[in-house]
Amino acid sequence: MSKTFSGNFFEDYRIGQTIAHAVPRTVTEGDRALYTALYPTRFALYSSDEFARASGLPRSPIEDLAAFHVVFGKTVPNVSLNAVANLGYAEGRFLAPVYPGDTITSTSEVIGLKENSNRQSGVVYVRSTGRNQHGAPVLTYARWVMVRKRDPEAAVGEAVVPKLAPAVAAADLVLPEGLDFTGYDFGLAGEAHRWGDYAVGEKIDHVDRVTIEEAEHMLATRLWQNTSKVHFDATARPDGRRLIYGGHVISMARALSFNGLANAAAVMAINAGAHANPCFAGDTISAWSEVLDKADTISAWSEVLDKAET
Amino acid sequence: MSKTFSGNFFEDYRIGQTIAHAVPRTVTEGDRALYTALYPTRFALYSSDEFARASGLPRSPIEDLAAFHVVFGKTVPNVSLNAVANLGYAEGRFLAPVYPGDTITSTSEVIGLKENSNRQSGVVYVRSTGRNQHGAPVLTYARWVMVRKRDPEAAVGEAVVPKLAPAVAAADLVLPEGLDFTGYDFGLAGEAHRWGDYAVGEKIDHVDRVTIEEAEHMLATRLWQNTSKVHFDATARPDGRRLIYGGHVISMARALSFNGLANAAAVMAINAGAHANPCFAGDTISAWSEVLDKADTISAWSEVLDKAET
Amino acid sequence: MSKTFSGNFFEDYRIGQTIAHAVPRTVTEGDRALYTALYPTRFALYSSDEFARASGLPRSPIEDLAAFHVVFGKTVPNVSLNAVANLGYAEGRFLAPVYPGDTITSTSEVIGLKENSNRQSGVVYVRSTGRNQHGAPVLTYARWVMVRKRDPEAAVGEAVVPKLAPAVAAADLVLPEGLDFTGYDFGLAGEAHRWGDYAVGEKIDHVDRVTIEEAEHMLATRLWQNTSKVHFDATARPDGRRLIYGGHVISMARALSFNGLANAAAVMAINAGAHANPCFAGDTISAWSEVLDKADTISAWSEVLDKAET
Repeated sequence: MSKTFSGNFFEDYRIGQTIAHAVPRTVTEGDRALYTALYPTRFALYSSDEFARASGLPRSPIEDLAAFHVVFGKTVPNVSLNAVANLGYAEGRFLAPVYPGDTITSTSEVIGLKENSNRQSGVVYVRSTGRNQHGAPVLTYARWVMVRKRDPEAAVGEAVVPKLAPAVAAADLVLPEGLDFTGYDFGLAGEAHRWGDYAVGEKIDHVDRVTIEEAEHMLATRLWQNTSKVHFDATARPDGRRLIYGGHVISMARALSFNGLANAAAVMAINAGAHANPCFAGDTISAWSEVLDKADTISAWSEVLDKAET
Repeated sequence: MSKTFSGNFFEDYRIGQTIAHAVPRTVTEGDRALYTALYPTRFALYSSDEFARASGLPRSPIEDLAAFHVVFGKTVPNVSLNAVANLGYAEGRFLAPVYPGDTITSTSEVIGLKENSNRQSGVVYVRSTGRNQHGAPVLTYARWVMVRKRDPEAAVGEAVVPKLAPAVAAADLVLPEGLDFTGYDFGLAGEAHRWGDYAVGEKIDHVDRVTIEEAEHMLATRLWQNTSKVHFDATARPDGRRLIYGGHVISMARALSFNGLANAAAVMAINAGAHANPCFAGDTISAWSEVLDKADTISAWSEVLDKAET
Repeated sequence: MSKTFSGNFFEDYRIGQTIAHAVPRTVTEGDRALYTALYPTRFALYSSDEFARASGLPRSPIEDLAAFHVVFGKTVPNVSLNAVANLGYAEGRFLAPVYPGDTITSTSEVIGLKENSNRQSGVVYVRSTGRNQHGAPVLTYARWVMVRKRDPEAAVGEAVVPKLAPAVAAADLVLPEGLDFTGYDFGLAGEAHRWGDYAVGEKIDHVDRVTIEEAEHMLATRLWQNTSKVHFDATARPDGRRLIYGGHVISMARALSFNGLANAAAVMAINAGAHANPCFAGDTISAWSEVLDKADTISAWSEVLDKAET
């Protein structure tokens, strides 16, 4: 019996199967410091305990995307170790803040399976959920990856492709408990722009750029206990290059977006996501945003951001 | 209206203007760990809670220069985003220790403005002060930078050049509250040299050297939320090189100075500072010190360091 | 009198001499986060406070090898600053968990001295012990290094070569106080393999590989306050390369061993160790293990791991 785990192959998955991912992880102030060192983030709610308390939270939570990476990292050994490609994300929702001291576990449910016509691989759709030590869900998202088959001849079930929403409905967004921006300090937050200042269709070039180093993306990816070989092992790919974890670029983009979206105080949802192109060390990342839609249903947030006095 | 901020230009400043810098930052044990990983620092007061408590402090503070970088980083978007050159520092004083859990904000006052004769730029002098969550100042320093004009033709006021002291007077140094070196353990601190062992004019070659990597200086500079493009973006300068944040070199030099100045237990002032030459990844840093003057007015410190029994 | 310390030479050591190493160090959650970022470690006991508490510990300790590096780092200035070669380790035992907040000091006793026949250098054997703030030993190990002589003609005492055990006896292993794996969750821990599943002579290829960067090994080595020049200074060796701290490779190997040894929950001893070859940035590290022997004398551990229900 081999002691090492070589990951799941396409034919190993079953619709409705639930996977409890290994290795719970307690997040700490150390993770926050590393996140700040790795990404040029300045969002006040995640930078200052005082700002967070003035906003009704007990203290500053860990960045939403840091929580996402922790949850995601746990899924890698079971979901994407044999992935050919990481195809997309949808229906991502942040359900509760993650605070230093919280311990995160992840589970995934297989919600779709579709073999490719060449029978060499197939697409696996999972819905993954992170929970804290109280069992409360902290975030959830759907993800689909192309996974190799161990044996191209292996029989598989009929294709099931889940219907995923093109965007998270405003009514499904969850406001962190206690969050109150009545006294929101735009000066401390870094910009004066309010919710009402952003127009649908508006594009923002976030101006700043970051050139990425090997050491940085590996530090980040290990921090999230992501075990995918291609990020760490220069001998894993024929071209001898280490592929940068897509989440590293997502966090970089979110951090860069501060310049123009400083008052996008927290990430509430990931409507959709795709890794359009691979990223390698030496690449220089820039970011731009387009306002696709607006919703004021979260009155406690958008109204305050719009109407509060500076 | 553009949502992104492109920084202030020379003609935007007014004498006496006060700038409250954005994004408060809670410092943590995570920052200390990263500081230790980034710089070869071994000063006992900042390495050990037990040593700090034996010295009369409630616990180990964050390194003085780490606090400096946090305060400095906040000033960058308002002061030096359009800087052509970072010209100098003076009158830096450390006024209170910064402990993990403290939240730091920065303000700057414009104390001098002098247009260059070519009218393309001018020198901006600011006095910046960091404060903790109680509003108590933790450090203050004067700094002057050469800043581009947006419009060379823009009219500016008469030149005001502040008179800055060539050195901080011993009487102006502030001893951390409670600090007591009566039981100072030279063995644990790492060297036997006392205050009386150092002579004015003495030069110390600190022997050790460090070759700097891109990933390291970027991790450090981001940790302090310093947003200056030239440190991160390899496309920002014509030569394609990323300029290393001058504070990275200052911290490296202070850390290297342990070998010969281990009992220079804390930084109390920055008399003067200049970035004599740019530093780039691949450079190897060494450090030497010269004892320019001595003062024993801080009796609780220098006398104890001089007279205590090992 | 020179203020800087150039390290001890072979003729400076005496049999029975005890060295109290400088600079106590408080370990924190920041150290844990950096350890996780530097090494692909996933051992549940060190990843999760909840898992640690379910295992009878008050919280998650710092990784055993992180504690080892802290203890080791302190010995470098006194033991190996003038080392020509780091020859070996033996009789390493982990005696108590190190928790965030603990402050570590190190002492070494010289237990052997043997001049080389060329009289240029000699082998120094030390037994080093780390202690926490309560004075309780947390780990101990023997180590021998080849150290230069200051003066080849200097007379030295008769050779003393300590008799070191080829392996730590099972009876000498120390179980962390309170550790109880009755409720050990193999699912959370990441693998189903129990003590009884491993056979003497079994070899495990841990599959994963990591390519090492300069910034990473320097961050790690500084974090442990290891001052050996060759790790940091590209000008220190004739070949212009920075030698990677051997402990960096040891930690990398332990972390990689998770894949196949996930339930090797804690490191209890280092039977023997040698740095077989130098390691440099750009090298890709893989790891394999061989089960050399088994002992079930630690009943609370091995029996539970063997008999517990998943």
